Amino acid sequence: MDPIRSNIRAMAAYVPGEQPAAGTYIKLNTNENPYPPSPRVLEALQAALTGDHLRRYPDSTGRAFRETAGRVHGVDPDAIVIGNGSDDVLTILTRTFVPEGGLVVTMTPSYVLYRTMSQIQGAKYQEVPFAKGWRLPRPWPVRGAKMTIIANPNSPSGTCVDANELAEIEGPLIVDEAYVDFAERNCLQMLSRKDVVVTRTLSKSYGLAGIRFGYGIADPALVREFGKVKDTYNCDVLSLVAAQAALEDQAYMQQTRALIVQTRQRLEAGLSKLGFEVTPSQANFVWCRRADRPLRPILEELKQRRILVRYFDYAGYGDGLRITVGTEQEIGRLLEEVGRL
Amino acid sequence: MDPIRSNIRAMAAYVPGEQPAAGTYIKLNTNENPYPPSPRVLEALQAALTGDHLRRYPDSTGRAFRETAGRVHGVDPDAIVIGNGSDDVLTILTRTFVPEGGLVVTMTPSYVLYRTMSQIQGAKYQEVPFAKGWRLPRPWPVRGAKMTIIANPNSPSGTCVDANELAEIEGPLIVDEAYVDFAERNCLQMLSRKDVVVTRTLSKSYGLAGIRFGYGIADPALVREFGKVKDTYNCDVLSLVAAQAALEDQAYMQQTRALIVQTRQRLEAGLSKLGFEVTPSQANFVWCRRADRPLRPILEELKQRRILVRYFDYAGYGDGLRITVGTEQEIGRLLEEVGRL
Repeated sequence: MDPIRSNIRAMAAYVPGEQPAAGTYIKLNTNENPYPPSPRVLEALQAALTGDHLRRYPDSTGRAFRETAGRVHGVDPDAIVIGNGSDDVLTILTRTFVPEGGLVVTMTPSYVLYRTMSQIQGAKYQEVPFAKGWRLPRPWPVRGAKMTIIANPNSPSGTCVDANELAEIEGPLIVDEAYVDFAERNCLQMLSRKDVVVTRTLSKSYGLAGIRFGYGIADPALVREFGKVKDTYNCDVLSLVAAQAALEDQAYMQQTRALIVQTRQRLEAGLSKLGFEVTPSQANFVWCRRADRPLRPILEELKQRRILVRYFDYAGYGDGLRITVGTEQEIGRLLEEVGRL
Repeated sequence: MDPIRSNIRAMAAYVPGEQPAAGTYIKLNTNENPYPPSPRVLEALQAALTGDHLRRYPDSTGRAFRETAGRVHGVDPDAIVIGNGSDDVLTILTRTFVPEGGLVVTMTPSYVLYRTMSQIQGAKYQEVPFAKGWRLPRPWPVRGAKMTIIANPNSPSGTCVDANELAEIEGPLIVDEAYVDFAERNCLQMLSRKDVVVTRTLSKSYGLAGIRFGYGIADPALVREFGKVKDTYNCDVLSLVAAQAALEDQAYMQQTRALIVQTRQRLEAGLSKLGFEVTPSQANFVWCRRADRPLRPILEELKQRRILVRYFDYAGYGDGLRITVGTEQEIGRLLEEVGRL
């Protein structure tokens, strides 16, 4: 008999964006921040680099980080659960809410990892298509989900839905705000609902994809249950220190955010001018399509020219390119190369 | 209806050993290494501390680490799966092998986290009592397990079983070798079986509990399935660098191991002299009991005197103290204080 669970055997592995060696490509494929993290992060890490720090287990609940994050967001530190990246947080939520065979609902086109997480859990999985203009369908068409996850801003579209559109969805409702620092609004006010969890990551707006740190915000009674499910020491001592220092430097985050939002406008305008249909973005990437020529060859040509972007093809919707907002120089180069194709 | 899965609602959280602020206690309660990691680890981390490293996602499969570990253990790098601590590896294995309601088997007394992991998965859980002298019962009494986990060396006893005792157990069989570098033998030869997984951690012998890094070794066909279940970026860029540097410095590990083994002898002899029944240990801790007086007050008294040790009480077996092997000075102080009680 196969020792592997049938749901695992049957599923395909999630395929992340390519990660070539540093410096070999202009990397606009995985929504990393083109700017380094705050200098305070590097200082804090330097100070934490002692043998005595490294040899001891970290604080399993990340109290110091949660106090900082609580202050930044105006929430109770006990309303925060720490994770080894927001993927870890989403895994914790899945295992808390979804039994084998339970229903997970997400949107399509959206972040394809949600499907992978459901498959690992042995859950049922249903995708709700976005309505025109990247709105949620009304009335909301699903009942009985064990968990609904909405990326907001959404990937690949970069679009946001309003909290009042989300209000119709039964809990547990997960609002994945990985990209929210690049948007105009967030959904923290939805936390007055006891069945909503908002997730955040340090990988995008704080420029710390390498350290793997994310967190969830929810009612403390829910967070206590998440604490049973998470690995005891799921966040290491260095990532805790880095995450705390990053959140403490909001001014730096806002500065780099402003640069990215400015370059995003240039990228949107440039792509439109080159004949792409561009979806106005609230994130650090831009989703673009075209009806007049196939996109795969553009992807391949750009790769030849040492520029990586991401291609997605969604059943029932079609394909497009998701291009991360890099530095001004990187986006200048991208637009130049696309213009020559 | 309660949105929390019933198995999660019903379970208690795992309670790790206390982690007080650094320097306030002699900490002999969580089997941390009393010595710092290799200086090469700190050098490698220094070199990796750049904004460009931190802002980018890590290598999701940890190839550079796996090549080093493959060389050290004489195995195929594709036979290795990386984890955010060996707890993460054990979680990955559980989710790969054990469906809801499937049976997980472990020994008792052993590492109580195995029960927690089973509860999170919604699995059935059966504990097999050790036979006299910390041997496995023969014949092995369970059939039909979805996964059997044996800590070897075992915690809290510090004892080892032989590979030939393990041979009787049906797969999937997980041999948790967290403490094996302090023992005389390991079970890597059991990997000729395609249904055995050996897990390792950097938290004990390499003095890196703070960075959260562990790995599993198994047939590459199994490792491919684990790769579907693990979070894409489950190990951060700094822990990957630290783990690789640590494994590359085997001489340093052997040096600190020798110190710990020497101090362990002193601890065993000292405790015996003070009237404890001591189980000869193959790990970096010592399990001791006594019939003539209760142990809880000893624990409490030691805490008053700023020394933390771990107390366990197992149903059907009884209680004992598990004392981590600290430095010579720390163990000298412990024996002195116990002598005064």
